[in-house]
Amino acid sequence: MGTVSARYPIGIPFHSQSLTRRFHCSISQFLLHTDVSTITLCPPRSSSEGLIHRVCARPDIDDFYWEKVPTPILDTVENPLCLKNLSLRELKQLAAEIRVDLSTILSGTQISLNPSMAAVELTVALHHVFHAPVDKILWDVGDQTYAHKILTGRRSLMKTIRQKNGLSGYTSRFESEYDSFGAGHGCNSISAGLGMAVARDIKGRRERVVAVISNWTTMAGQVYEAMGNAGYLDSNMVVILNDSRHSLLPNIEEGPKTSVNVLSSTLSRLQSSRSFRRFREAAKGVTKRIGWGMHELAAKVDEYARGMMGPLGATLFEELGLYYIGPVDGHNIEDLICVLQQVASLDSMGPVLVHVITDENQVEEQNKKRFITDKQQDESVSADLLDNAGQPQTYGDCFVETLVAEAEKDRDIVVVHAGITMEPSLELFREKFPDRIFDVGIAEQHAVTFASGLACGGLKPFCIIPSSFLQRAYDQVVHDVDQQKIPVRFVITSAGLVGSDGPLQCGAFDITFMSCLPNMIVMAPSDEVELVRMVATATHINDRPVCFRYPRGALVEKSHAIQDGIPIEIGKGRILVEGKDVALLGYGSMVQNCLKAHSLLAKLGVEVTVADARFCKPLDINLLRQLCKHHSFLITVEEGSIGGFGSHVAQFIALDGLLDRRIKWRPIVLPDSYIEHASPNQQLDQAGLTGHHIAATALSLLGRTREALSFMCS
Amino acid sequence: MGTVSARYPIGIPFHSQSLTRRFHCSISQFLLHTDVSTITLCPPRSSSEGLIHRVCARPDIDDFYWEKVPTPILDTVENPLCLKNLSLRELKQLAAEIRVDLSTILSGTQISLNPSMAAVELTVALHHVFHAPVDKILWDVGDQTYAHKILTGRRSLMKTIRQKNGLSGYTSRFESEYDSFGAGHGCNSISAGLGMAVARDIKGRRERVVAVISNWTTMAGQVYEAMGNAGYLDSNMVVILNDSRHSLLPNIEEGPKTSVNVLSSTLSRLQSSRSFRRFREAAKGVTKRIGWGMHELAAKVDEYARGMMGPLGATLFEELGLYYIGPVDGHNIEDLICVLQQVASLDSMGPVLVHVITDENQVEEQNKKRFITDKQQDESVSADLLDNAGQPQTYGDCFVETLVAEAEKDRDIVVVHAGITMEPSLELFREKFPDRIFDVGIAEQHAVTFASGLACGGLKPFCIIPSSFLQRAYDQVVHDVDQQKIPVRFVITSAGLVGSDGPLQCGAFDITFMSCLPNMIVMAPSDEVELVRMVATATHINDRPVCFRYPRGALVEKSHAIQDGIPIEIGKGRILVEGKDVALLGYGSMVQNCLKAHSLLAKLGVEVTVADARFCKPLDINLLRQLCKHHSFLITVEEGSIGGFGSHVAQFIALDGLLDRRIKWRPIVLPDSYIEHASPNQQLDQAGLTGHHIAATALSLLGRTREALSFMCS
Repeated sequence: MGTVSARYPIGIPFHSQSLTRRFHCSISQFLLHTDVSTITLCPPRSSSEGLIHRVCARPDIDDFYWEKVPTPILDTVENPLCLKNLSLRELKQLAAEIRVDLSTILSGTQISLNPSMAAVELTVALHHVFHAPVDKILWDVGDQTYAHKILTGRRSLMKTIRQKNGLSGYTSRFESEYDSFGAGHGCNSISAGLGMAVARDIKGRRERVVAVISNWTTMAGQVYEAMGNAGYLDSNMVVILNDSRHSLLPNIEEGPKTSVNVLSSTLSRLQSSRSFRRFREAAKGVTKRIGWGMHELAAKVDEYARGMMGPLGATLFEELGLYYIGPVDGHNIEDLICVLQQVASLDSMGPVLVHVITDENQVEEQNKKRFITDKQQDESVSADLLDNAGQPQTYGDCFVETLVAEAEKDRDIVVVHAGITMEPSLELFREKFPDRIFDVGIAEQHAVTFASGLACGGLKPFCIIPSSFLQRAYDQVVHDVDQQKIPVRFVITSAGLVGSDGPLQCGAFDITFMSCLPNMIVMAPSDEVELVRMVATATHINDRPVCFRYPRGALVEKSHAIQDGIPIEIGKGRILVEGKDVALLGYGSMVQNCLKAHSLLAKLGVEVTVADARFCKPLDINLLRQLCKHHSFLITVEEGSIGGFGSHVAQFIALDGLLDRRIKWRPIVLPDSYIEHASPNQQLDQAGLTGHHIAATALSLLGRTREALSFMCS
Repeated sequence: MGTVSARYPIGIPFHSQSLTRRFHCSISQFLLHTDVSTITLCPPRSSSEGLIHRVCARPDIDDFYWEKVPTPILDTVENPLCLKNLSLRELKQLAAEIRVDLSTILSGTQISLNPSMAAVELTVALHHVFHAPVDKILWDVGDQTYAHKILTGRRSLMKTIRQKNGLSGYTSRFESEYDSFGAGHGCNSISAGLGMAVARDIKGRRERVVAVISNWTTMAGQVYEAMGNAGYLDSNMVVILNDSRHSLLPNIEEGPKTSVNVLSSTLSRLQSSRSFRRFREAAKGVTKRIGWGMHELAAKVDEYARGMMGPLGATLFEELGLYYIGPVDGHNIEDLICVLQQVASLDSMGPVLVHVITDENQVEEQNKKRFITDKQQDESVSADLLDNAGQPQTYGDCFVETLVAEAEKDRDIVVVHAGITMEPSLELFREKFPDRIFDVGIAEQHAVTFASGLACGGLKPFCIIPSSFLQRAYDQVVHDVDQQKIPVRFVITSAGLVGSDGPLQCGAFDITFMSCLPNMIVMAPSDEVELVRMVATATHINDRPVCFRYPRGALVEKSHAIQDGIPIEIGKGRILVEGKDVALLGYGSMVQNCLKAHSLLAKLGVEVTVADARFCKPLDINLLRQLCKHHSFLITVEEGSIGGFGSHVAQFIALDGLLDRRIKWRPIVLPDSYIEHASPNQQLDQAGLTGHHIAATALSLLGRTREALSFMCS
């Protein structure tokens, strides 16, 4: 991976609205010197080498599914413009073909099919009615955008999704002009869309702005901030609430505890009930704000306008200042087009919210066959993930098993969880202690302060949030926990690189932004035994907050049996291997890579010390003094950005005068760039964090440059 | 300042509910060995030396207002228990006396009177009905809690508010057991209160939890996250919406643009209109969830129950799952007590929202006289703040003047503002370009993504957020701006220490959490000329995000005339004074303190180099190489936490091999603790960031320890 700027190899400006220029960019160097005016908007499918530039991990031609399943209409759709002249019948057929396409593309992947399937008709209708990329369509959940990707010139690359150099799993402004804004963490589309709408008005342009939100992001505070401000600013924009609960929270119907938010339940009830129809007649007179006039479709839209559903559901949006229309059947293309055309044709309307409901059964029916197959596959995958003794294989599994064991001993332990989806391993905790786990959904700010309140009430909350989502609650961590020195235990998951999830979910910054906080204890386990001990350690810290991070990956020892953890002395690291000359001081998972470097170096006769820092804060100053005293070189290694562990070590040894003597310090951190989606190993290699890189750094410091270079190239 | 742990000198446990033990802690060392059972709950006012421990900056006895204005009932109130047996008439009298007290205390301070005044009756009613500190009362705005402080044993210390070693301007768990949770950034009280309520239920306790929110925090997303989750979890708790718009947004009636959020307007309309009363009769049948039964006050409460106000306003809360009661006249103690008693006596109610309205005229009337006096005072203060030439005297003024000048040349410049209150100096921008400034209120997450959308739409947004509030939008900065490399200009105000606002508003972490972001340009001006140039620089950066920070304080040169800024070359620092041996490399406002150190050292014959780094990212690597080549010691100085500028310098000079040679590096950063409220100079001194401290560090490195010590003691 290069730096982000490398993604604009031919210097296309940001705000270009020229379709041809954009495609010039996104297709290939092959076309770089071709006459722009002759380029068609769709890359020719049959061409082969050299056609795809950055997005270039091409599948084998044999993999092309449309060679096998006929998709006659989809085959003619090279870009959204091609949808303009399709008849309703053809659009329906197109939607069906996209479903087939999606099924084929996503089969055999770990990607959930439902979110994309649920949005197929909506996507078709949006691209039929609006004129992307001039009109701006913003999504807030990447998983729902695959049909959008298929319709916007990326169909031939769909097989590369989430692979190195392939399509992103999310929308990306770097990938396509049709992706108006990046969607990764959810809930940003109304804010960004409102900004675009206001900029349009100031600039005197006329394009339409459509922000799609999903029912689950209605839990996130930013959506309310954005709707409130949209209602106030009153700029024309369309917000579409893509209410496809089934797709994202498949267990919604299993029990009341599965839903985490009353609004979600309200929407859910609205969806399942048809009783709102009785309000329709009484409310006919209310639709006065839109002057529907003589449009032939007005009557149908009028049905959908706010009167028809009574006070339940709609009022919330109305009170936030959005004109509510709905609910609309999200699989009825005719209705969708009708409503969207009306909404698109209106000026001076202010913000409108169209509530689109996905009938889960419709998706379900089509997916039933695939679902069964998937389930069988999942089961075999699950079996793979467990070794013969039935032991867990991921850090997440290990953490939850340990926490369950601690919770059995200590009745005060509770779990607060936030983030995109429930960690599957947490189900174990939920089964054992259903009343001691709180899944608040995408509401990280609330999660952290809520955990703080639980701690004030005498409980021992473990607040589990992925690293990149903890960014969303940073102020709450500072203000509501650290400043008040309240013992919340933060469990930072997905720390470091996250493979196919790419830069959007990468947990790069947590060491830096957590370890600058005065009262926080910051630690990271180097393996599963250490993780077990750190859970015990965190359980026993009752006078201040503590956090520890673990990566998404597999455990070091597959068949490790979880035992009781013995708490670690706070601020106490350990030496794993004693050597001389060079000390490798690893933090968290990088200790393993230091050990790999040790093995590589041992073969060359170089003996290095490997130490496991365990704590970024407080540092083990005795360990540091010892390492500095007995070695000429100290290399700190962490899977995090600048400003974290290495910086804390440097500041201490500088102030302690150690850095003035013979020790030479070299930090190895994540590079100063976002690392694109790829396999975990590819990402580590790109980041320069493998055992080979560490060994090469050591060799280089020892003056053995040639050997260092050979490591870098191997 | 000591570390935070020093605040618990005698080891009182966090969750103690014993009143006597608590006072044991909060009164003094004098009482430490006294028989606990003999202590009254209020510290004797007439006692003098040694009575007050940490909160000990006592006013002169002559300042005691109640020596002059009779407050007979208030004088008998030593703690909230004393309110229990007061009659309604006495409670009314008490409220009036608190008003007098507040007026006296706050006269002559910069503290706004209205927020506290508006909450007086509510505070009296709360402490009459609930049993703090067993019952938990949480506030979300510090300014509203002064009556609460007066009633909870801190009356004699009110004159010390926001002074060194005095009372905090906010609630603080370290200050009083009656402060159930810290309030500083707003909008956290429902989340924390819900946590306490859930913990209570799990622990099988029975205390009541009351979370007070204010109308302006209804703009913040976290409040919605919390209400939604409260509605779902259905724990018993009382949320009080203290809707005293006038107090906090005094210009609300001046025009529609002053309100920033439709919900605020809705509440406002509700407040001014009495038309909701016509819904009362029709809705009487609705109050079925509460079984009021035979209670004599039930009829009155029933009037307030949700039926009486129609669909406007209440429904939003109802849909979030809170049972709505209101609006209640917030100055009618009888009504307040009646409603609160009903609410307090109910079990199995789930969360209830009581909407309390402050009649601004009532406060207004009482304050009119003081208001006029204040205004005269303000005008004289304003005159002080401007020098003879009418030039601005704060960084904020200078920034806004410059931005106005830039905006006159560049029509694309717009302002997005978020945070507690509008910076007064921004009024100048609003007057000139009313359509190019967007104040989104306490909705930092939205502000950042909205600014990103504006930039996508071709505008040049300057997003102005105080450092500590930018923490609330960190994920949006990462995900919606930096990762997408969108040119938003972040203006980070209140950077560094903030005097009497204490640790809650201290901008300690922004250098650290911004400079780890790959695409962000991070800079800080060392004086007003540099600030002007950095505004110009930021205006011209169109390919990536940029941020710069400035402190709350006064400008270096009072009478500097603002001129056109010449953009600075990106990543280019400068040397201000050339010396030898020791190089002082300052970042931002700390360059001035480096210059002070230079003057002090020059008197001792020590000549040091002083350089202004300007950029934390990208670093001026040529400057760094030059400083390392020509000096034996490099001292980096910044008004920020570990992990920021110094860490970036250290990492570069380590990787560049410079640190291996003769240069010795010493970082000076904010200490690893929260610095309590005090004057700016006292805080700087505590932080070790004065010119004297820097000079002492240099002398110490040069081996002149005795002189160094003399500086530290001076």
